[in-house]
Amino acid sequence: LADITRAEETLDPEDWDELRALGHRMIDDMFAYLSSVRTRPAWQPVPAEIKEQLDEPLPLDQRDAAEVYEEFKRHVLPYPTGNIHPRFWGWVKGTGTPLGMLADMLASGMNANILGHDQSAALVETQVIKWLAELLGMPRESSGVLVSGGTTANLIALTVARNARAGFDVRARGLQHAEAQPLVLYASTETHSCAQKAVELLGLGNESLRRIHVNKDYQIDIEALRGAVARDRADGCKPFCVIGNAGTVNTGAVDDLTALAAFCREEELWFHVDGAFGALAALAPSLKAMVAGMEEADSIAFDLHKWMYLPYEAGCVLVRDAGAHRATFALTPSYLKPTARGIAAGGLTFAERGIQLSRGFRALKVWMSLKTHGARLFGRLIEQNVRQARYLGELVESHARLELLAPVSLNIVCFRFRVAGLSEAELNALNEEILLRVQESGVAVPSSTQLGESFALRVAITNHRSRLSDFELLVEAVTNIGEAVLRS
Amino acid sequence: LADITRAEETLDPEDWDELRALGHRMIDDMFAYLSSVRTRPAWQPVPAEIKEQLDEPLPLDQRDAAEVYEEFKRHVLPYPTGNIHPRFWGWVKGTGTPLGMLADMLASGMNANILGHDQSAALVETQVIKWLAELLGMPRESSGVLVSGGTTANLIALTVARNARAGFDVRARGLQHAEAQPLVLYASTETHSCAQKAVELLGLGNESLRRIHVNKDYQIDIEALRGAVARDRADGCKPFCVIGNAGTVNTGAVDDLTALAAFCREEELWFHVDGAFGALAALAPSLKAMVAGMEEADSIAFDLHKWMYLPYEAGCVLVRDAGAHRATFALTPSYLKPTARGIAAGGLTFAERGIQLSRGFRALKVWMSLKTHGARLFGRLIEQNVRQARYLGELVESHARLELLAPVSLNIVCFRFRVAGLSEAELNALNEEILLRVQESGVAVPSSTQLGESFALRVAITNHRSRLSDFELLVEAVTNIGEAVLRS
Repeated sequence: LADITRAEETLDPEDWDELRALGHRMIDDMFAYLSSVRTRPAWQPVPAEIKEQLDEPLPLDQRDAAEVYEEFKRHVLPYPTGNIHPRFWGWVKGTGTPLGMLADMLASGMNANILGHDQSAALVETQVIKWLAELLGMPRESSGVLVSGGTTANLIALTVARNARAGFDVRARGLQHAEAQPLVLYASTETHSCAQKAVELLGLGNESLRRIHVNKDYQIDIEALRGAVARDRADGCKPFCVIGNAGTVNTGAVDDLTALAAFCREEELWFHVDGAFGALAALAPSLKAMVAGMEEADSIAFDLHKWMYLPYEAGCVLVRDAGAHRATFALTPSYLKPTARGIAAGGLTFAERGIQLSRGFRALKVWMSLKTHGARLFGRLIEQNVRQARYLGELVESHARLELLAPVSLNIVCFRFRVAGLSEAELNALNEEILLRVQESGVAVPSSTQLGESFALRVAITNHRSRLSDFELLVEAVTNIGEAVLRS
Repeated sequence: LADITRAEETLDPEDWDELRALGHRMIDDMFAYLSSVRTRPAWQPVPAEIKEQLDEPLPLDQRDAAEVYEEFKRHVLPYPTGNIHPRFWGWVKGTGTPLGMLADMLASGMNANILGHDQSAALVETQVIKWLAELLGMPRESSGVLVSGGTTANLIALTVARNARAGFDVRARGLQHAEAQPLVLYASTETHSCAQKAVELLGLGNESLRRIHVNKDYQIDIEALRGAVARDRADGCKPFCVIGNAGTVNTGAVDDLTALAAFCREEELWFHVDGAFGALAALAPSLKAMVAGMEEADSIAFDLHKWMYLPYEAGCVLVRDAGAHRATFALTPSYLKPTARGIAAGGLTFAERGIQLSRGFRALKVWMSLKTHGARLFGRLIEQNVRQARYLGELVESHARLELLAPVSLNIVCFRFRVAGLSEAELNALNEEILLRVQESGVAVPSSTQLGESFALRVAITNHRSRLSDFELLVEAVTNIGEAVLRS
């Protein structure tokens, strides 16, 4: 036995002081990296030689952690997507925060598994869910769970909606039953593709998601919705849910949520709000009215790694009816049976609210960030981004070479470089080339979308590092590059 | 404009040096916390006064980060679930590692979103997936993606199986079609409850998951499986998948994967392996034969935060047929359209392999850990845990008061305190009380399960800090507490 004991190994360092010293160097390096981010390009492609370095044979033997860290610094750290940069406005990505980084380190060190149970980390998540419900105007007794992001949050909400409203035991029987009426749900044509991903996963099928057209402000047309529901009922389908948008991904449009809530009440439909980023507008006093009606939802999906700027991954789903939420996911095999005392006394609170059983401690960064920064600062930053979007909108409108392609309702600006006499196809090609050159220049990162027939440069501002002057630099880059492309 | 610019705020610290100094203190504290973990109780309940402290009003205003950190140290850090402790063997939880903690900090600071795109983090994940495929004996060109954990990994694999084998376009049409044959799949009665969660989500329904009984070693009875498939075909159902277990959660049993692979080939069924922890046995030369046949699977789900000891969350799913994998999840709305150059040139590699669109940089801890520790050390640690399980099994068998309740096939030991003349119900009540007192004593954390009629103390060893002597302490605690309960 003594021999075997001596031979026992571990992943703890032989020399704790040495690894701790490396940890200190990492802290210094990351603080230098983050505080100087403005001096670097917003993005740069990964060079071919780095791509080669990142394709190695399987490492078999032990090496010095400091050596591996040097490789991280040479091959990985210099080539991020760029969303930590003040002039990154592509897709909808958050910036991250230095405090969030430290909180993630603490969480990873504690290595708590928040399926539930009697532990501090579960209490922290319970606390955070209550705060988020309050911030979004949902009852404090709403059920909720932190998840990887908006897609999972929406998926969870739609699973609860399906199971609660199907009228039969979907968990046991599934949807493969000839006698059941086909379940159908509704959302505008501007709804995020995660809704499609969800209905495909859930076995409802993409065809079950009825796309309702939008008005000129990209909001769902409620009369068209009413007609579609009536037609489906007449055709023997069973409408069960409407998805409202608080901030569409293309243009930031917010559906008339109050009207949708009323319609869903009348029609006895589950009212789900996808507020991936836009739901957070509720934190800003001047913007709260824009998402009015959201607080009447049966469920809300939103992200904290977008417009709350926290590091990945942090999303949340809130469900008004805690019973329906739990009834969708609770499942207790014998090895997970709660006990009267001991660790399992806490039950499986969070595993019973979503897909994951093992769950990390993402609640910690939310808790530390809300306690340190305070909800009001988040509200002011959200207002700041909206103000920046309006400012960019004005810059675009006042520039002869630029054209706004959609109303700036929240934090998204869609525009293009315009040249009289060019066809739509030529304008599209020109603007796509401008987009790529702007990205390649390292000055700024917009992304793009298609609005009707038009290719749009798209700027989505969920960035606490952006300054008004950064948008002036963008306009300068787009117009200069546009002229250069025209000449060539 | 100048006025507005001056007023602009950020979540970056006003004083970078001050927050960096706090970061250094956190590093020192966490290293002290981890290196001294053996001196603390394996678990302790959260005291009532701490529960009160963790229920506060919504924080509205800014506070000093150092103050909030002090609250973390007082209210959160002392009350973990315990899985970082050398004598924590409850459920199947990994220990975490100091290096993994540091890697998580770096990842959170970079704040990369690995949906794909041209960035170093996506290359790191590609690299890690190749290494993991090689370690598990899957072709290097297999498709794969890192996920939150085993439940999601299994869900993704079963979604691909469903869509690839249904025989119609499940994504578009869903399962709500009267003319389609009901899809059914198979797994042993010992299969983890996440399989049920998956079929419920997928709209297949729990009834579609046929539970096949097991032999005395808790392995699926393949003749019973053959009979069930034949009966279902005769009844007009469409069998599409078999789930094999590499390490069941109750006893660590491994199904005969070679036989299952052959059966699935014959019957043209998708062969999925749930190897949440057991798949990693492939890393250990002396254990690899136990999971032979796994490399013939169409898909494998496994965790890195269990038997690779990494911090939460890190799971992985591998799919042999990359085309089928992508065909299940790829979906490209206009705002995500890949471009010829620029950031989006990398495509949506990882978003097209699973549920999440935004995805954090969990690949970094896997990459740094494999490069630093080397695959061989992981293999030796897994062997060490199996040796420890066998040692505990021997201790149990050689003790008059203890009884082994299942064969020790891998790293799980199920046993109980026994007293001649007590009924099964009395033994169960006695052992449940022993379990709670052992947990409450802080000496060690086993969990429990039900095997047949018997309540079992269950020790699952996925812990790189455990030493053989720790299991002697467990046996001492169980027998002393058992005698004490008997007397009282």
